[in-house]
Amino acid sequence: MTDLIARLGEAIGASHVLTDPHDLASYSVDWRGAYRGTPLAVVRPGSTAEVSEVVRLAHDSGVAIVPQGGNTGMCGGAVPSDDGSQLVLSLNRMRAIRSLDAGSATITAEAGVVLQELQSAAESVGMLFPVSLAAEGSCTVGGNISTNAGGTAVLRYGMMRAQVLGLEVVLPDGRVWDGLRSLRKDNTGLDLKQLFIGAEGTLGVVTAAVLALQPATPSRATAWVSLPSVSAAASLLSVLREHAGDWLSTWELVSRPALELVVAHGVPDPLTSEADWFGLVELAGPAGADVGSALEDALGAAVEADLVLDAAIAGSASQRTGLWSLRERVSEAQESLGPTIKHDVSVAISSLDDLVSRLAPALEAALPGVRPVIYGHVGDGNLHYNLSRPASLDPDEFLAHAAQLSTLVHDATVALGGSISAEHGLGSGKAATAASYKSDVEVDLMRAVKQALDPAGLMNPGKVLPLQ
Amino acid sequence: MTDLIARLGEAIGASHVLTDPHDLASYSVDWRGAYRGTPLAVVRPGSTAEVSEVVRLAHDSGVAIVPQGGNTGMCGGAVPSDDGSQLVLSLNRMRAIRSLDAGSATITAEAGVVLQELQSAAESVGMLFPVSLAAEGSCTVGGNISTNAGGTAVLRYGMMRAQVLGLEVVLPDGRVWDGLRSLRKDNTGLDLKQLFIGAEGTLGVVTAAVLALQPATPSRATAWVSLPSVSAAASLLSVLREHAGDWLSTWELVSRPALELVVAHGVPDPLTSEADWFGLVELAGPAGADVGSALEDALGAAVEADLVLDAAIAGSASQRTGLWSLRERVSEAQESLGPTIKHDVSVAISSLDDLVSRLAPALEAALPGVRPVIYGHVGDGNLHYNLSRPASLDPDEFLAHAAQLSTLVHDATVALGGSISAEHGLGSGKAATAASYKSDVEVDLMRAVKQALDPAGLMNPGKVLPLQ
Repeated sequence: MTDLIARLGEAIGASHVLTDPHDLASYSVDWRGAYRGTPLAVVRPGSTAEVSEVVRLAHDSGVAIVPQGGNTGMCGGAVPSDDGSQLVLSLNRMRAIRSLDAGSATITAEAGVVLQELQSAAESVGMLFPVSLAAEGSCTVGGNISTNAGGTAVLRYGMMRAQVLGLEVVLPDGRVWDGLRSLRKDNTGLDLKQLFIGAEGTLGVVTAAVLALQPATPSRATAWVSLPSVSAAASLLSVLREHAGDWLSTWELVSRPALELVVAHGVPDPLTSEADWFGLVELAGPAGADVGSALEDALGAAVEADLVLDAAIAGSASQRTGLWSLRERVSEAQESLGPTIKHDVSVAISSLDDLVSRLAPALEAALPGVRPVIYGHVGDGNLHYNLSRPASLDPDEFLAHAAQLSTLVHDATVALGGSISAEHGLGSGKAATAASYKSDVEVDLMRAVKQALDPAGLMNPGKVLPLQ
Repeated sequence: MTDLIARLGEAIGASHVLTDPHDLASYSVDWRGAYRGTPLAVVRPGSTAEVSEVVRLAHDSGVAIVPQGGNTGMCGGAVPSDDGSQLVLSLNRMRAIRSLDAGSATITAEAGVVLQELQSAAESVGMLFPVSLAAEGSCTVGGNISTNAGGTAVLRYGMMRAQVLGLEVVLPDGRVWDGLRSLRKDNTGLDLKQLFIGAEGTLGVVTAAVLALQPATPSRATAWVSLPSVSAAASLLSVLREHAGDWLSTWELVSRPALELVVAHGVPDPLTSEADWFGLVELAGPAGADVGSALEDALGAAVEADLVLDAAIAGSASQRTGLWSLRERVSEAQESLGPTIKHDVSVAISSLDDLVSRLAPALEAALPGVRPVIYGHVGDGNLHYNLSRPASLDPDEFLAHAAQLSTLVHDATVALGGSISAEHGLGSGKAATAASYKSDVEVDLMRAVKQALDPAGLMNPGKVLPLQ
């Protein structure tokens, strides 16, 4: 291995091959500290040619590679194994925006560009890059693509997959696939880029992408609503769409316990309603669009139909920020209750109510006093169904129930035809669980693709698909 | 083979296994009569289980299968070889809409459902299925998925791929992959459905799909515009988006010769402008949306910026139909000039002008008097760059130039980073041409996936990828 390290240093410069344990620390653990590994070394190539050379050298030595972006994943997908055998390939020196074509509404960015930098580049030409999520200050384009990131605007714009027009990928043997096309339509054979989106680096290393930009939406109207039920939340989606069409950009659900936590952390509650469910609605349109009237019309119709109990509409930018805080600060506020057992599940929108109705009694029966703190994306059928400990239970005792409680959440989700990982991916943390819920045919198909593209099994082994 | 025919009859009923040459005729040739083959037999299974049984029997006999939907493709993808060795598997008995969930905005349809039936089903619950194309009265859901169909609303809603939430596929060995999920988000591993979309039946047979529906857009505003240049057409896209945002649903380009043909066929010209380029713009929004004002504002700004010379706005439904005819009847009107050499190319939107500017003199030099009749989808960078013969040239002599002229069109497109088949796919007609323009790495990747999923090479051989 010292031989490989030396050759890597020759290829990309010794200063970009880290082996000192002190230097390796931040690359060895995810941001939450939930996953931890021990890399053989960390390599930081500065160009696609250097990535290609690194991958080829590792391939020829039979050494596995773990690609890493902003290291903000939720499932350990970018963390190496703990046996010191795997090379972490960090893309954080590849931060160029190679081109921006406003006329074509496309931007070509390298894998290490931080999501917020990408959003800013789009804004600088009066356009919008619509993917937005909590980690946008540190997550990267390559990671967003490799995990098919979601966030709060999926309802309108789709996930990261929907933004990708072209990709540049270093394949497991070091060859470069140049699929950096700026085309809206290209039916010349298999759409290869789809393979690498959401593959978490198990089929190759994404080094750059052409992404679509959207028209800016400077006109915004935002409301906080209280709801009689989850079923009303799902029905409200139809009403909002009927009145506002594509202007509807946000429809986020928050449960009463989640709201109470945020309010206890100092965010003002604009409604003081007794309801069990709340939500954040936002319309966004071009300059001059009368989004305010559309929102009032839609909410009026919803109140009429008993889908909304009460509503507060933001009258200023600072009020809008306040309403968004009610949704965005749930995760942070929940930390005050001790450790959280997190779930990221999705079902068909019309099954959301069913899922919540089934889970509440089942979880209470399994662990009396357990506290669900639920929030999520109604338009995507996606709930972050997170659990906090009963007030009287010791954190470690609570975590001892994690497997049992998660199985209940996942079983109920799958029984409704749902997904146990809507937007967070699988990494190492959920790979085996996901496989256990899938049919043999589906696992076989996934393994066949993996075998076809990475026959040596050196690209991020054990992620997405469990090792056999 | 008589043994296989007998077993197929036992599996799905002898009346659904056609071998009489008279019965085979309509399945042996595409709608244009451009591709012709000779099937071993035509099988018409009535369920997914029957498709599975047919594929398994053929697989075990080493007989190749050609899946066929509405048979309206442009590149021969659904036509068998002419040696009588291949089984045509028609999906036209699988016409059930299995479910429609308005609350989740999803519909589950079998492969043989005709696109227009799907659109009608969506309308029946006040929603929209947005894919729309000339063949919608006979093309099918399975074919639309297998060719990743485009059409006139891609600008706003994306291609068929963007509508697919879940798939059911019979794999090359007869196993059924049940991926019929109604989820907006599912990051539990490789997104296998992407493999089969646009694969033209070379990796398996799509038997059913879950498709997303959109909010209805009853408010419409439509205009016919004259333009100073193709470059103005591309710039106008930005202006339209800035003013109308997602309401912009159509921005179609028509060249002067194309317009003249349609007008000669009796469609009234609302502008009588001397311009070289024209276009159809449509905004569509929810009930009550003031699309008319938005269109007037946008066109006003465009005239101001010298991007539009003149405009006619439809004042009634019948005027709207008239404006649409100017675009929709080009293809039919061009037939009056004799045989057409068709191209379906795309480039980045900002390169459209470059493509047209390069091609005009090159084509004229190659065949003086050749008549380009161009129309296409500006928002997709997609032009149907079709050629008619010089008035003085015999049709057969013209067709003798087809390879030379197509090479010019394709070379120029690829030189600009474009695609030689934007929305029509490859079938047998363009498979070798597409491969000749692709890198070895890309062809290798496509072959690796094909080999992984269809090792026996029995699924629609020679389509998409040329036989080796």
